[in-house]
Amino acid sequence: MRALVLTDQVCYDAARPEPLCDRNEVLVGVSVAGICETDLQLVKGYMGFRGVLGHEFVGIARSGPYEGRRVVGEINCSCWDCETCRRGFPTHCPHRTVLGILNHDGAFADLIAVPQKNLHLVPDELPDDVAVFTEPVAAAYQIPAQLPLARADRVIVLGDGRLGNLCAQVLAGITDHLLVVGKHPEKLALLASQGIDTAMLSDVERSRAADVVVDATGSDSGLPTALELVRPRGTVVLKTTVAGAQTMAWAPVVIDEITVMGSRCGPFDRALSALAGGEIDVSGLISARFELSSGVEALEHARTKGVLKVLLDIAPE
Amino acid sequence: MRALVLTDQVCYDAARPEPLCDRNEVLVGVSVAGICETDLQLVKGYMGFRGVLGHEFVGIARSGPYEGRRVVGEINCSCWDCETCRRGFPTHCPHRTVLGILNHDGAFADLIAVPQKNLHLVPDELPDDVAVFTEPVAAAYQIPAQLPLARADRVIVLGDGRLGNLCAQVLAGITDHLLVVGKHPEKLALLASQGIDTAMLSDVERSRAADVVVDATGSDSGLPTALELVRPRGTVVLKTTVAGAQTMAWAPVVIDEITVMGSRCGPFDRALSALAGGEIDVSGLISARFELSSGVEALEHARTKGVLKVLLDIAPE
Repeated sequence: MRALVLTDQVCYDAARPEPLCDRNEVLVGVSVAGICETDLQLVKGYMGFRGVLGHEFVGIARSGPYEGRRVVGEINCSCWDCETCRRGFPTHCPHRTVLGILNHDGAFADLIAVPQKNLHLVPDELPDDVAVFTEPVAAAYQIPAQLPLARADRVIVLGDGRLGNLCAQVLAGITDHLLVVGKHPEKLALLASQGIDTAMLSDVERSRAADVVVDATGSDSGLPTALELVRPRGTVVLKTTVAGAQTMAWAPVVIDEITVMGSRCGPFDRALSALAGGEIDVSGLISARFELSSGVEALEHARTKGVLKVLLDIAPE
Repeated sequence: MRALVLTDQVCYDAARPEPLCDRNEVLVGVSVAGICETDLQLVKGYMGFRGVLGHEFVGIARSGPYEGRRVVGEINCSCWDCETCRRGFPTHCPHRTVLGILNHDGAFADLIAVPQKNLHLVPDELPDDVAVFTEPVAAAYQIPAQLPLARADRVIVLGDGRLGNLCAQVLAGITDHLLVVGKHPEKLALLASQGIDTAMLSDVERSRAADVVVDATGSDSGLPTALELVRPRGTVVLKTTVAGAQTMAWAPVVIDEITVMGSRCGPFDRALSALAGGEIDVSGLISARFELSSGVEALEHARTKGVLKVLLDIAPE
């Protein structure tokens, strides 16, 4: 099969062996996949991953109870048997693999092996180009799943990129005082067109007045900036994962008694219902699409300033 | 008056002018003061403080409603009028000064000016050498004030020093599964003598099984070590304030969805009742005592490996 493979660098491989399924897994023929900031970080060395990249996808199940039907798949492949899984935290299973991120080949390929338990049926009315956003939309819904938010809370989303946009759309439905702070006028304009307040980072006073700041910058500078915006006793939700170590002063976290809350994967059911119900609009987020065979170029393009979501067309719809 | 003053370095000044009280403040004649890790960090440049050091003290009010009576004093001098104060977070008042830490002379002196509102009467049965621990004991009680803890929670206190010991004693009354992890056999032995489980850091498996880890190390290495001990979705309570910038990888906080909660000053009433009721035993914590005139030497001694609390005798009891 065809696949985009990360070794020391990313290569297109037209003759990658098809993935083998273990007894809990089924094969999914990938239709469309999305490129995420995490993919770009993986290429930079994050997690030390080697294998087929890709964890945002929609496709058609080739076996199992959903055979022939359109599916999306959760990315954490958990054992469901350890203490962590039994406590209700399967996304943190210490034995897990993660599609396209940790010891499991991903979705930038004709076929991906996915645990049946991870699959969700895609409602018929949801086009592939919308359903492919299920994983990042679920990650955005993880914020309210972890942190109770009130309508009166003053919330700032830091970052106007792919994930920042989705976090903002999710939070706009929950709080009356949302501000998205970014560096890209055209990306902020997209959010403004959806009725969301925006501001350029350079124009924002470091007034430490926000109850909650979401760092969706994907950048080393996100957390230090968030600490300049959040009020004492406030919360910074950390969505950014970057490779390597970061340097900053931690003392303000203690002095201001800030809560820094890491946040990762979220509820697929909620994401699918939000996409199907039109609560989240991803139509403006697709910047470009490439054939799988041009995947190396697609990754390069996803890195370009001003670009939001880049999709890979893998099988014709 | 006599005072220990931080300028570019720490100096003993036998002729420091007496502090001036504003209309809300009263003078307190300091009896005994304690040296804290924060004092040592201030000397290293933390907060850029200049002035009389010292924020742990017991003394006798020289004016106001408590004139002639023994008092301890909260360290944050708040405006009580701003939004932060009115929301119930006076310790985070943006207009605050902090005794011996921020724009307010401290307690390593014959006299200190303290807002009357900050003073608490010391119960008669509490000797000065116990009452002087009120401030750090209050800081330890801030942990359960911020974070609900259950008896079944597995809690690790990282650090066997001055603050680690007090945090451990507070948490020992709340959880059945407390472990103090340190580097100093003699300090761990002191905790063990109080019935608290202890372990040398070098012997502790990095099993990421603790529900809560309290970083009371006072060291750059505390938070990274805490992240190796806390379970996914667990909480790290950060008590350590160190000068300058620190370097570590923040990605694990996101991947494991850890909550890092900064924690600073706590409830004096609770600390006083715990000290008076014998819930917290500070008798083993006093390593040495010095006259104020030997304050420079006292600070040096407080830095020495194996030393716990160093007291300054300022006025005869």
